[in-house]
Amino acid sequence: MMSPETAGPITKYYYGLPSERKPLLRQSWDNKVYRVARKIKKVGQDDPRRIVHGLKVGLALTLASLLLFYIKPFDLLDEDQNGIWAIMTIVLIFEFSVGATLGKGLNRMVATSSAAALGVGIHKIAIRSSGAGRATVIGFFVFTMGAICTFMRFVPAFKPYDYGLMIFILTFSMVSVAGYQPENWGKNVQDRIVTIIIGSVIAIVVCIFICPVWNGEDLQNLIAKNIEKLGNFLEGFKDEYFHKGEYFPKSEDGQPLDNKPFLKGYKSVLTSKSSEETMANLARWEWQYRFGFKHPWKQYVKVGALTRECAYKIEALNSYFNFEFQAYEFRSKIQEQCKQICSETGKALKELASAVKTMTKPTSVNIHIEKSKVASRKLKLLLDIILLEDYNLREIIPPAAVALILIDVVPCIEKIANAVHELAYLAHFKTPDSILSP
Amino acid sequence: MMSPETAGPITKYYYGLPSERKPLLRQSWDNKVYRVARKIKKVGQDDPRRIVHGLKVGLALTLASLLLFYIKPFDLLDEDQNGIWAIMTIVLIFEFSVGATLGKGLNRMVATSSAAALGVGIHKIAIRSSGAGRATVIGFFVFTMGAICTFMRFVPAFKPYDYGLMIFILTFSMVSVAGYQPENWGKNVQDRIVTIIIGSVIAIVVCIFICPVWNGEDLQNLIAKNIEKLGNFLEGFKDEYFHKGEYFPKSEDGQPLDNKPFLKGYKSVLTSKSSEETMANLARWEWQYRFGFKHPWKQYVKVGALTRECAYKIEALNSYFNFEFQAYEFRSKIQEQCKQICSETGKALKELASAVKTMTKPTSVNIHIEKSKVASRKLKLLLDIILLEDYNLREIIPPAAVALILIDVVPCIEKIANAVHELAYLAHFKTPDSILSP
Repeated sequence: MMSPETAGPITKYYYGLPSERKPLLRQSWDNKVYRVARKIKKVGQDDPRRIVHGLKVGLALTLASLLLFYIKPFDLLDEDQNGIWAIMTIVLIFEFSVGATLGKGLNRMVATSSAAALGVGIHKIAIRSSGAGRATVIGFFVFTMGAICTFMRFVPAFKPYDYGLMIFILTFSMVSVAGYQPENWGKNVQDRIVTIIIGSVIAIVVCIFICPVWNGEDLQNLIAKNIEKLGNFLEGFKDEYFHKGEYFPKSEDGQPLDNKPFLKGYKSVLTSKSSEETMANLARWEWQYRFGFKHPWKQYVKVGALTRECAYKIEALNSYFNFEFQAYEFRSKIQEQCKQICSETGKALKELASAVKTMTKPTSVNIHIEKSKVASRKLKLLLDIILLEDYNLREIIPPAAVALILIDVVPCIEKIANAVHELAYLAHFKTPDSILSP
Repeated sequence: MMSPETAGPITKYYYGLPSERKPLLRQSWDNKVYRVARKIKKVGQDDPRRIVHGLKVGLALTLASLLLFYIKPFDLLDEDQNGIWAIMTIVLIFEFSVGATLGKGLNRMVATSSAAALGVGIHKIAIRSSGAGRATVIGFFVFTMGAICTFMRFVPAFKPYDYGLMIFILTFSMVSVAGYQPENWGKNVQDRIVTIIIGSVIAIVVCIFICPVWNGEDLQNLIAKNIEKLGNFLEGFKDEYFHKGEYFPKSEDGQPLDNKPFLKGYKSVLTSKSSEETMANLARWEWQYRFGFKHPWKQYVKVGALTRECAYKIEALNSYFNFEFQAYEFRSKIQEQCKQICSETGKALKELASAVKTMTKPTSVNIHIEKSKVASRKLKLLLDIILLEDYNLREIIPPAAVALILIDVVPCIEKIANAVHELAYLAHFKTPDSILSP
């Protein structure tokens, strides 16, 4: 008999206190099911919009199937086989964000129509011959268009139209090939285009009008959050590094510092390049009332890149937690200016983050940056006049290098601030007065 | 008249020497066409496999269309509308690498078959009622399955089956919905599954047997190249940083150092995380004779992550190019050991890179690492005994910090070496003897 005390915490939690022993295989299976279930639950908890997205796709599919198969509103859809193209379109284009859905939907509609038109042209050429001749003509065009369009998908300039190119090959091949058997041919092509447009419209409407997920907002939040994480690090670093002399945080194994999440948060900034670029590309498809047609998405990418540059410096700062904290007396000499730089740049970054998030012009950022510049100049002078006789070099390098990196961080933050100011100008950020006044 | 001398170099190159003036609009259009053409050419030159890929897709499409529509080998394909499913399958699953194509193809075949089976089940339930009842049953199942499967696509554990889940929703919805009109229904579903399998097989066969692109090899090469880039940096850094006293590389604007590509090469390592992970996931679908079933792809990702850790340190080293090179006398005191660390770690990294690339066990890596450790210990001692009276702190911090980072790089390289040794064990790398012996 297995006593309740020996059951793992997970089993206990799942079953309450087990009243009798379960076979080992059963137990491990239960644990596995529980673990998977917990993971799935976490996916929903992390971002509840994912659950909503699932329901939206279900809704769009049900709408399309009821509309096209049950109510049959369009006379032209008499051949019901074509109705499945609406279902297919919805499954293939319905993405999480409005930008991705709109991009795919527009790509699909334009590519389908143009490829169908071209396919009809090829068909007209092909029907002049018959048998082997027709097969040769169609085979030639399918091969050539397939090869060219597939190659074009590698060209960076065509990346936003990648899905369109794929659909173009698909439709063109299908329309041309269907020309082998020309009975009912024109009608079929027409019907399919109409159903594809219906499917696209259903997907786009459901995506936009029920709890929409705007890529533009997500990008804004990501950029703002990344800037904020750097600010959190700098403010936290100040307290951790210059706290007291005997303090040994020792982060190499990550143990004692794990309960200080602000010292780890910036790590995700180091690798967020590709998601920022993808989001900026998708955001361009969103013509949202809030952002307008010509929102400067590229500028967000620029701010993101500068933030990452700064994150590399912070990674370097972080590495000095690995060294033993000695030279207390030396550190206490430079700590005032270092702390000043950390706290002023931290404040500046936090204000920049909130400016990006709320689309408000930053106001006091320049004051903080000026203060940090003053501190940085003072620190430089201080480093010049410190007498070194009494020190051991290896002990004082880490704090001295920290000081030097902090001096180096200041122009980095200034670059981010300038990029955000430019963004505020380009994107017509609000002036804070309009918020303060009632 | 525009003289040949005032024409831009691009125009000259394109037209030869222009004999008469062109209208401005025409010129800029020509330039634009030329620029786009040059970009497209570059895409092909950068990786000629892209051109081959285009031709392969064209070939697969032509094969499928000829086979299914012209030769008509299968009696069961009498309703020719179903033949287009082969075309569609090829366009949707034919990817650049074997891993991606195989993954999508297998996903598609399994998902189509299982979704069709489930759809048939729902159909049998639905036909017991009629009219509104049937629509309700089908609508309910389409909604539920669509919502659940769409949500599941967010769960990380299901990422390799993402495409399968999508196809599952697609097929399930189409099969269930087609059940509204049951005439010819079973035959249609059967035919489609057969054509989808034919399309998948054509795509997979063409992808594997004509100039295949193996994701596993690409991943190996990427990891090896990244390690090599770090080695190049360290070897190059040694010569650049400790070259002579008056040398000012000044890389902040990137101008004078641009002709030293080894000092910039490591930058791409900083952001290669997502492509490494994608490649490792796709490589799992490739059961290649060379790599075998259970090749440790995760270990490659681990090596890649350690390489990136080291790249962050190198980014910190690189930032010291921004400081003016003073304290020549101080630098000359530590330069021997620093150079030793750079050159030994550089050699170790290059051997590790070639080990990963050629799948051969590294042999002399440990010797280089031991040498670099000895140099690192000597450097530490040296830093302890240097007398600081004659120095200005701000001048000596940069070289001293460089020394400290170099000391810190050594255990980093050792970690990479250990991970590669583990990889060599797990992946049964050759011992170099088997190459040397005839």
